[in-house]
Amino acid sequence: MKAVLLGTLACEQRERLAGLVRMPFDFVPLPDDAPVAEVAAALATTRVMVTLKYQRGMPPAPALGLLQVGGAGYDDIDLDYLPRGAAVCNAFGHDIPIAEYVILAMLQWCSRFIEAERSLRVDGTWRLGGRAGAPLQQELAGKTVGILGLGQIGRALIPRAVAMGTEVIVSTRTPRPPEPGVAWIGGPDRLDELLARADFVVVTCALTPDTLGLLDRRRLAMMKRTGVVINVSRGPIIEEAALYDALAGGSIGGAVIDAWYQYPTRDDLTRPPSRFRFQDLPNILMTPHSSAWTTGMIERRWATIAANLDRFARGEPLVNVVYRA
Amino acid sequence: MKAVLLGTLACEQRERLAGLVRMPFDFVPLPDDAPVAEVAAALATTRVMVTLKYQRGMPPAPALGLLQVGGAGYDDIDLDYLPRGAAVCNAFGHDIPIAEYVILAMLQWCSRFIEAERSLRVDGTWRLGGRAGAPLQQELAGKTVGILGLGQIGRALIPRAVAMGTEVIVSTRTPRPPEPGVAWIGGPDRLDELLARADFVVVTCALTPDTLGLLDRRRLAMMKRTGVVINVSRGPIIEEAALYDALAGGSIGGAVIDAWYQYPTRDDLTRPPSRFRFQDLPNILMTPHSSAWTTGMIERRWATIAANLDRFARGEPLVNVVYRA
Repeated sequence: MKAVLLGTLACEQRERLAGLVRMPFDFVPLPDDAPVAEVAAALATTRVMVTLKYQRGMPPAPALGLLQVGGAGYDDIDLDYLPRGAAVCNAFGHDIPIAEYVILAMLQWCSRFIEAERSLRVDGTWRLGGRAGAPLQQELAGKTVGILGLGQIGRALIPRAVAMGTEVIVSTRTPRPPEPGVAWIGGPDRLDELLARADFVVVTCALTPDTLGLLDRRRLAMMKRTGVVINVSRGPIIEEAALYDALAGGSIGGAVIDAWYQYPTRDDLTRPPSRFRFQDLPNILMTPHSSAWTTGMIERRWATIAANLDRFARGEPLVNVVYRA
Repeated sequence: MKAVLLGTLACEQRERLAGLVRMPFDFVPLPDDAPVAEVAAALATTRVMVTLKYQRGMPPAPALGLLQVGGAGYDDIDLDYLPRGAAVCNAFGHDIPIAEYVILAMLQWCSRFIEAERSLRVDGTWRLGGRAGAPLQQELAGKTVGILGLGQIGRALIPRAVAMGTEVIVSTRTPRPPEPGVAWIGGPDRLDELLARADFVVVTCALTPDTLGLLDRRRLAMMKRTGVVINVSRGPIIEEAALYDALAGGSIGGAVIDAWYQYPTRDDLTRPPSRFRFQDLPNILMTPHSSAWTTGMIERRWATIAANLDRFARGEPLVNVVYRA
């Protein structure tokens, strides 16, 4: 069975995928720079496609039965553009590294580890050391961590945050009784309360029409003046201009941002991540959508994807179906 | 009752201490640059002294009943120099920030967060991002953490490391049955086994004649070639030249060092932390003895110290007695 790998990221996993599938697949790699005619010809007949992006303006795929997303977020898939009957499945495996990223980000925010490390190793001074009478650092223990969304990432983050001695509160679509160590798990109606209470607001929910711009100017203004927002999901869940203004004006304490508003192409890795110059602000840590980029994530994710392709080829029920056209 | 605060670090806590004690103490601050005659006069009669350092060559304190150390380590107190009957008590409160430091250090080692952050914010490139096809990072989950010593720090570290999904093994003076989530807690006879198995070797034990140079050339050679040693206790527990050679020669993967071989004076904060140029090595993170330097530590520690001073003044049993002359 033919399976199109659309986009360079999917193409780079061709060999891994070929080694993982049990059924006889014929993989057709179409990297970002593939000629349109070639893409059109392949999509015209394929029943299976693995990609992160498929939108109106790209060639149609009238025979498509499975669109397997190469990640968790499917906000770059235009669901209305799919032929009737096509299933969209996503893939996980990113929960552990992203939870680890959030713990590291919070610890760094409290401790100024990076600055202390540079000051001794690079600058050769003890000025940030305890015995030098340096300004005191903070601790993560005792802080309140507010998590938006309770999917794979939120569930991996909770036990880690609890063990670090934080108070954990959650706002999610479907409220439920809190698990051990969690203060409360509320619905969207408790979002404002979460924002006002949390020292760290961690955005882990999916980008959907409901969450686009969820943290707008009004909601960011509810955060503590020392509050730090951490985004490991999708940039536009936080309104871009409002975030910049809140940071620049000091109405919130800071931000740790891994999910952005603009992304690079393989040909231009210097495209700015936003139309605002976040990099000039003193109260932000910026990473290049790297929080999930681990060997473990790739292994778990593509094992799941291969298994789903096999299920489709065998006519078995698919897993992680997020939409059916 | 008179209480001498010997050394600048203790003197800086004078107001805090005065606000915490219930008994009427008369605090005598003697900073690092106090004239020797003044120190001699004060020590000649004082029954109480709070200090991090008291050694032969300093004026005698023949009336001393309580030497309250301003920290956990009392390796700078010359126990043989104390008058008969004097009690030495140490103080804690550093367990949480140091456990947090170790978790941060391990996460940073796995994830290259610092490099990714700088590359986007400072260099303006996405080259370390997932969508740019960057080299994959590692995860802390699944790694083995070997802890040397099971005092306050080790006990704070264990639940955090367990929640991060690591395998935890411990070598300590007194082996005991492992607590939940811990693979094993062995005696000194299992140290070599720990070194060979651990991805991270965390030195948390006290510096004593038994632990001086504990990680010598032979023991460092037992570590994995990818193994990372983290020292949050006292420098000389790891043999200085052997550590430098292991890092420079690549026989171990790296080191995160907060506890050093040479310390600065307040007048010269640029004194190198070692006679070797660790700062030129590519596989080390260096911090200026800053891991415990938090507001929370200071508050917990000095509350304990004040309570112990009150106990002494009232003739009640002291806590945290580590030695009686």
